[in-house]
Amino acid sequence: MTDPRLKAIIDAVVAGTLTPADAEARLAAAMRDLPFEDLGYARVDHHRVVRQGFPEVVFGQGKTPEQIAGIAERIVARGHTLLVTRANDAAFAAVSAAIPAAEWHAVPRCIVWRGAPPDPGHGTVLIAAAGTSDLPVAEEAALTAELMGNHADRLFDVGVAGLHRLLHARDRVDAARVVIVVAGMEGALPSVIGGLTASPVIAVPTSVGYGASFGGLSALLGMLNSCAAGVAVVNIDNGFGAAAMASKINHL
Amino acid sequence: MTDPRLKAIIDAVVAGTLTPADAEARLAAAMRDLPFEDLGYARVDHHRVVRQGFPEVVFGQGKTPEQIAGIAERIVARGHTLLVTRANDAAFAAVSAAIPAAEWHAVPRCIVWRGAPPDPGHGTVLIAAAGTSDLPVAEEAALTAELMGNHADRLFDVGVAGLHRLLHARDRVDAARVVIVVAGMEGALPSVIGGLTASPVIAVPTSVGYGASFGGLSALLGMLNSCAAGVAVVNIDNGFGAAAMASKINHL
Amino acid sequence: MTDPRLKAIIDAVVAGTLTPADAEARLAAAMRDLPFEDLGYARVDHHRVVRQGFPEVVFGQGKTPEQIAGIAERIVARGHTLLVTRANDAAFAAVSAAIPAAEWHAVPRCIVWRGAPPDPGHGTVLIAAAGTSDLPVAEEAALTAELMGNHADRLFDVGVAGLHRLLHARDRVDAARVVIVVAGMEGALPSVIGGLTASPVIAVPTSVGYGASFGGLSALLGMLNSCAAGVAVVNIDNGFGAAAMASKINHL
Amino acid sequence: MTDPRLKAIIDAVVAGTLTPADAEARLAAAMRDLPFEDLGYARVDHHRVVRQGFPEVVFGQGKTPEQIAGIAERIVARGHTLLVTRANDAAFAAVSAAIPAAEWHAVPRCIVWRGAPPDPGHGTVLIAAAGTSDLPVAEEAALTAELMGNHADRLFDVGVAGLHRLLHARDRVDAARVVIVVAGMEGALPSVIGGLTASPVIAVPTSVGYGASFGGLSALLGMLNSCAAGVAVVNIDNGFGAAAMASKINHL
Amino acid sequence: MTDPRLKAIIDAVVAGTLTPADAEARLAAAMRDLPFEDLGYARVDHHRVVRQGFPEVVFGQGKTPEQIAGIAERIVARGHTLLVTRANDAAFAAVSAAIPAAEWHAVPRCIVWRGAPPDPGHGTVLIAAAGTSDLPVAEEAALTAELMGNHADRLFDVGVAGLHRLLHARDRVDAARVVIVVAGMEGALPSVIGGLTASPVIAVPTSVGYGASFGGLSALLGMLNSCAAGVAVVNIDNGFGAAAMASKINHL
Amino acid sequence: MTDPRLKAIIDAVVAGTLTPADAEARLAAAMRDLPFEDLGYARVDHHRVVRQGFPEVVFGQGKTPEQIAGIAERIVARGHTLLVTRANDAAFAAVSAAIPAAEWHAVPRCIVWRGAPPDPGHGTVLIAAAGTSDLPVAEEAALTAELMGNHADRLFDVGVAGLHRLLHARDRVDAARVVIVVAGMEGALPSVIGGLTASPVIAVPTSVGYGASFGGLSALLGMLNSCAAGVAVVNIDNGFGAAAMASKINHL
Amino acid sequence: MTDPRLKAIIDAVVAGTLTPADAEARLAAAMRDLPFEDLGYARVDHHRVVRQGFPEVVFGQGKTPEQIAGIAERIVARGHTLLVTRANDAAFAAVSAAIPAAEWHAVPRCIVWRGAPPDPGHGTVLIAAAGTSDLPVAEEAALTAELMGNHADRLFDVGVAGLHRLLHARDRVDAARVVIVVAGMEGALPSVIGGLTASPVIAVPTSVGYGASFGGLSALLGMLNSCAAGVAVVNIDNGFGAAAMASKINHL
Amino acid sequence: MTDPRLKAIIDAVVAGTLTPADAEARLAAAMRDLPFEDLGYARVDHHRVVRQGFPEVVFGQGKTPEQIAGIAERIVARGHTLLVTRANDAAFAAVSAAIPAAEWHAVPRCIVWRGAPPDPGHGTVLIAAAGTSDLPVAEEAALTAELMGNHADRLFDVGVAGLHRLLHARDRVDAARVVIVVAGMEGALPSVIGGLTASPVIAVPTSVGYGASFGGLSALLGMLNSCAAGVAVVNIDNGFGAAAMASKINHL
Repeated sequence: MTDPRLKAIIDAVVAGTLTPADAEARLAAAMRDLPFEDLGYARVDHHRVVRQGFPEVVFGQGKTPEQIAGIAERIVARGHTLLVTRANDAAFAAVSAAIPAAEWHAVPRCIVWRGAPPDPGHGTVLIAAAGTSDLPVAEEAALTAELMGNHADRLFDVGVAGLHRLLHARDRVDAARVVIVVAGMEGALPSVIGGLTASPVIAVPTSVGYGASFGGLSALLGMLNSCAAGVAVVNIDNGFGAAAMASKINHL
Repeated sequence: MTDPRLKAIIDAVVAGTLTPADAEARLAAAMRDLPFEDLGYARVDHHRVVRQGFPEVVFGQGKTPEQIAGIAERIVARGHTLLVTRANDAAFAAVSAAIPAAEWHAVPRCIVWRGAPPDPGHGTVLIAAAGTSDLPVAEEAALTAELMGNHADRLFDVGVAGLHRLLHARDRVDAARVVIVVAGMEGALPSVIGGLTASPVIAVPTSVGYGASFGGLSALLGMLNSCAAGVAVVNIDNGFGAAAMASKINHL
Repeated sequence: MTDPRLKAIIDAVVAGTLTPADAEARLAAAMRDLPFEDLGYARVDHHRVVRQGFPEVVFGQGKTPEQIAGIAERIVARGHTLLVTRANDAAFAAVSAAIPAAEWHAVPRCIVWRGAPPDPGHGTVLIAAAGTSDLPVAEEAALTAELMGNHADRLFDVGVAGLHRLLHARDRVDAARVVIVVAGMEGALPSVIGGLTASPVIAVPTSVGYGASFGGLSALLGMLNSCAAGVAVVNIDNGFGAAAMASKINHL
Repeated sequence: MTDPRLKAIIDAVVAGTLTPADAEARLAAAMRDLPFEDLGYARVDHHRVVRQGFPEVVFGQGKTPEQIAGIAERIVARGHTLLVTRANDAAFAAVSAAIPAAEWHAVPRCIVWRGAPPDPGHGTVLIAAAGTSDLPVAEEAALTAELMGNHADRLFDVGVAGLHRLLHARDRVDAARVVIVVAGMEGALPSVIGGLTASPVIAVPTSVGYGASFGGLSALLGMLNSCAAGVAVVNIDNGFGAAAMASKINHL
Repeated sequence: MTDPRLKAIIDAVVAGTLTPADAEARLAAAMRDLPFEDLGYARVDHHRVVRQGFPEVVFGQGKTPEQIAGIAERIVARGHTLLVTRANDAAFAAVSAAIPAAEWHAVPRCIVWRGAPPDPGHGTVLIAAAGTSDLPVAEEAALTAELMGNHADRLFDVGVAGLHRLLHARDRVDAARVVIVVAGMEGALPSVIGGLTASPVIAVPTSVGYGASFGGLSALLGMLNSCAAGVAVVNIDNGFGAAAMASKINHL
Repeated sequence: MTDPRLKAIIDAVVAGTLTPADAEARLAAAMRDLPFEDLGYARVDHHRVVRQGFPEVVFGQGKTPEQIAGIAERIVARGHTLLVTRANDAAFAAVSAAIPAAEWHAVPRCIVWRGAPPDPGHGTVLIAAAGTSDLPVAEEAALTAELMGNHADRLFDVGVAGLHRLLHARDRVDAARVVIVVAGMEGALPSVIGGLTASPVIAVPTSVGYGASFGGLSALLGMLNSCAAGVAVVNIDNGFGAAAMASKINHL
Repeated sequence: MTDPRLKAIIDAVVAGTLTPADAEARLAAAMRDLPFEDLGYARVDHHRVVRQGFPEVVFGQGKTPEQIAGIAERIVARGHTLLVTRANDAAFAAVSAAIPAAEWHAVPRCIVWRGAPPDPGHGTVLIAAAGTSDLPVAEEAALTAELMGNHADRLFDVGVAGLHRLLHARDRVDAARVVIVVAGMEGALPSVIGGLTASPVIAVPTSVGYGASFGGLSALLGMLNSCAAGVAVVNIDNGFGAAAMASKINHL
Repeated sequence: MTDPRLKAIIDAVVAGTLTPADAEARLAAAMRDLPFEDLGYARVDHHRVVRQGFPEVVFGQGKTPEQIAGIAERIVARGHTLLVTRANDAAFAAVSAAIPAAEWHAVPRCIVWRGAPPDPGHGTVLIAAAGTSDLPVAEEAALTAELMGNHADRLFDVGVAGLHRLLHARDRVDAARVVIVVAGMEGALPSVIGGLTASPVIAVPTSVGYGASFGGLSALLGMLNSCAAGVAVVNIDNGFGAAAMASKINHL
């Protein structure tokens, strides 16, 4: 947290190019020029694009449309790309009233406004999904990966009960630099793909299932206990988080 | 529970070949000649071989060596095959003192005495195990299946992280009439095998694993949520139960 | 996955009945003639009828009506029997617009179109249900079993709190080749039936209950811990899965 | 908590048979003459025999042998019956050093010294156990019931997988005023017995089982969800608690 | 299950007062005259009033209004008291169309028709509830207890955070022959009441609470672990079950 | 529970300033003048302001609008401050019909009527919230704290993923006498704040999150396992409870 | 993290009392003079006594005796009070070899060396324990509280099943400034005490119990759901944590 | 799974350089030359070094010393690096008898034999551990990372309760290409580090803790719910798995 500007101010004072009073003023200004903006109900973290390579993403669930629109405006005002996940119609109405160019992505339920283009990633991020019911999560991952500058390859409905559907697409698996695997129910697909590829695999359990799937718990536990090496897991239905991890890897 | 002997007694009384007093005596005898034997601490169910096709099997856990030996003697005295599961050295010592020909099977921790040969099953029961650590459970299943008259084929260490090991043995999978699949950790193997074969699959989760395997819970949930049709599940580490189910199917 | 067609192509090349160029073309065609059809959002597995004895069944939950109708059309176009489980009115509207002869089964919430008649099973599949509230699951099992070519016998409301209702129907239990037992709450019925019959028992826990039934968990655990041999379990409310297992057994 | 002695003291002061100073002294004495005895590490509740009909019972687990012996001495000093549950050899050694007549009951692991005979109950308490492995819990219940003045009838190894063993003893079930049912694994026996008898049933789940029995959780949930009316449940392995409940009922 | 009528038939045949053919006919009649009535979707258990002292009670949840009305008609047709628990407006509309005298009890959501008066119990059943939010469950218990012939005393909002409210009513606690204690959240009230009274206590956890109450789990566990002797527990929100248990005890 | 009035009555009788008959009358009055008011469905605890420093607070969930309004009237009739938590529009309509000056606080869903001013606390209670979605819980805490006489400082959206937002406000953390920390998801904020301040920290997990947050369980467990000393936890979403604890501390 | 020393250095440079080179040197020294000491396997936090009012406490579990002794030496070398919790004989042997004056406290399993006397707290911390088996946890709390400068009052074996034992000691409850309540099983004691006192209550669930206590889970949930206001909870068996919280409050 | 050798054989047959008979023989040889070696109890996967970049790693838990030594010999015979995790003294004795150069690493309980040097990774893998008790897991990660060709930087005891210890080492965090964060208890460290760095973070929950840590569950849930983007999680105590993932990333 030690700020290099402090040292610069010292040097300037010593060099006589800065009076003590100006030094104090500049220190105060540095404090005002905070790396976040305080809206009362939110502190928008504008420095995140520097620290993390991508602006703050708005988690829409549990926020009012007004709060979402308020945060969105502050992000867009800086020219940063806007991504609101887990949004709904009311949130999109509020955001598009303020930002007419905002886009609504229905399948992953996301709001997007495209700002400065991101640094491009070095390879392809493959998003493999076990079943058609997993599409909302898989699309959230694919959209996020693309917004973060990655090329996304979608490979859907390749669950392990019909293994030939996956083996037929093995070249696409081999071609990917990072693989995101989305699956509900027993969550076995990451283990199978993890055994086939040398690329890192990010597993996303989904809440698709019923009964003893317990809202995605069975897929989550299956993935955490994967016998394949090189598999790591994110939260249930967290397509965004998987893509954020994949993008960090793909930008190394 | 209506006993055909009751009708026979009526008919005999009517036919005059049985006096009422004799009828009463024979009824009393029928009551004494119970389908179980009462040892106080246990009621040995000798009719099970009739109802279920195999004698009562002794669950060794939680019983004293003396109790196990006492029950074992009553079973062997009828010439029935003895199988004690989840036994230990002390139990085997007590049993072999009473039944010198008893065998100790170290890997599955079972005591066996072979009685009248069982009806042979119609095909092969394949026991597939995901890893070497699953062997105790897999061997309990294989031993039980054999004692019940089935041909058992053992296919071990074919977990999904190295899928080619399973695909290489696909003909053995196809040749089996019933498949028992034993796996811990994420428990994905039954889904993969269930997708390959038209035979019924009985899945056995094992407690092999650590951390979030929670004593076999992850494998159990994975198997219950299998996206493959034709898979049913037994309790964690229940190799015996899987073989009993397989044997009932294989004797149809 | 080694395809016998590869060997045939070798032989033909050697025999001079196939030029190398034609061999390449035929190999490419074999690749195109995939055992599945790619709709983008789904890969319909047309080979399943060969591998498993029944066409792919559509799990309706989490799919849009359009996706369900699209998949249904591809299945019916091949003359395969269509079964959509966990469907709703909107899904049926979309399917029947495309396939006017489709049937709606309200109690089990299934969509059906009857294609080529299946191979008949060898005996009767009994579906026993503990209570009236278990009927939706029990009917899903019965309908599935019938579509797969089995004779289904329905025995409902025979829970263990009034044991005489079950014992009265014991001949129907004895006559079945496979027994499916559907129960919620404490899930004790499979243990009782498993102790009475030599046929394999497939237990289906239901989410019927309240409080500490925890959505079917109590019935599930009860069935997994059954002290009766020859009982295996499927997922909570999974009537379809139980019937698929029963049908595989009944076709042996 | 208002004590009738307070009113008596008022009346005596008013009547002039007690001086204010004496009133104060008698109040102080009443405070000293507490219904419990303070040992620092324990407050022995000697009034419990009045409030509850049986002296305080010592839960041995987690107490040192010295603490157990110390509490035991205070109970025996009043001539009250001593019952220590969940004891071990060391605890018994310490107690018998202080109370030579103390008895050790090995199966239920209890220490007993018989004091003033209890009020006799009005009927028989039947203790039914599903399996031989449930004996330690069943014997704790039977011993406790007897010490509390009840006639106990032991009916062991009558689990639901061999229902005829229970039906054969149905007259003993019908003859009981209260029934305690002890079972592990799926815990189905209370539902079956609850459906047969008009007497209240107290269900005791045991930790007997493995895998998905989760230390008795499956039996507990099964019993709580019993579809039979007139069944209530105590903690896992709590034979003592079941007998305390049964005895209260049997003394009404 | 051995029926005394069988012996009577034997005796009559022997005595010559019954021909073998008549004996067969009477046996067949006995079989027809089943203790239940089969509606296809339900087997109404008319013998329960004999076995259990109260007619079958209809669990309304998960049944259609038509099924509930159909079962209700068969019960009322025998003059038995009707009690439907967990009902709703639609169910009451269907029932009252068929049985105009049916009553709707809004707080506990029950449908009632009063048939032959029950045997009166011997004392009072006290229903103590911790908070106002527990009233639906407490009223289900009170109504059931009254329908089963017991005098019910309602003592509401006496939770342990204001202990004086309970201690003030201690005479009503002491006067009860059986106590039902209904509580949500931490479920501590049964332990406190169990320590004060010598009567048996039946504890009913409720789903009242939020957060870590996990739908009544916290109250359930609290009650199962009660340190007071003479407390047994029923399922979460199971006011009916508690009253059925209490009534069995109160009729001893 | 020994009431000092009893001693005063004794002294007065002895002093001759009270006749025995008057003493009895005054005792009876004391009994009538109970510290609660019985509405049948509720026993309003008017003494709580004496015992606890704040009137009884009404937990709105699970109560009907009529019950809430009835209890509210009795509290306001004494001039006590009214606070109804977890209320809704219908409850507010019923309350404001009876108490026109009642206020509706929409974010925390509370009803308030301000009675006698409370004792002021000695310092500031800081309410720190990790994210915007946690505001309803944080505002419930802040409002409660203010009604109980404390100065509340709101510091929102300072979650650990952007640590500089918290460090920037460190002086406000240091200035607080008690800190309430509200967080969902991983619930890490109390550990970080607990490591920075010497003041006691009360952690409130929220149900904000999805997937493996399991309704706030992850945040709850995180806070209970905090490696920082001086952190204690209340129930999930229990802003009221945290403020009640904080206020007790702040009034010491 | 902005350090006031930085400003002092600026001022001194400006004032000419410090050369730029000396400023750099002093900055480097400030960096070396870290508030922790790095042992490789541990970073001993010597500043904690400043930030928190008490030195770092060593959590003994999972550390080797050598590691514990190494950390202990560094703490004692500064004259800080040493407290090692969850220690064992081997750890004490290693510590006392290095620090001969170290004390062993057997009941709470703690190692202590008394350094500079702490600031005294303002009142009494009462430690109430429900049962004798809870003593190890209660003593850990009492010892910690004393080492941190508080007067500790021990009130043991006052569980709710014998409420008079607690009510008898009500004056000690009223006299405490902070109350720590230690209880296992159903964990009801904090609710009862919380309803009696205006002081803040810190609840400590213990793992005392069996069966459905699930290692203290039942007590934990009970305490989190307490209906009494002014109760906050720490981790299971965390006597240390409760005392740290109490001490922070008692030093306000 | 299509093998390029098949095409080569076709071409050779066509070219006349291979007779059909030789083609068959070579096909058979290809089948024998399997990418695994079958030991009966294990199928050693020698191709894994090709598919995954590192030889098969032996999971020691649940295997006998003989099995471990047998597998180890087959790996070393090929010159592959041997790593056995979760080993013990007996396993090391058996392995070192066969492979004298095998090393024993006591802290992480691993057996190692160094074969052909691995491809070097491109940057540093930082292993940050929250506490001293987490060292066994952290060292398993560090050792694995090093064996796989990565430079490992160890940063231990930087838990969030003393945040300055981490901030002091921020340059080492910034310098790492991949960060592994190991933490038990509340598992908050990955969120804090994930917010500071742009590198991917792999979180490893450990079973360090007690009470409500439930064997690492609290840390696991905390990490899965991390509000920081770019964090993925492996199984509890799975240091090996984290390093395998990190190494795959570091070799991209």
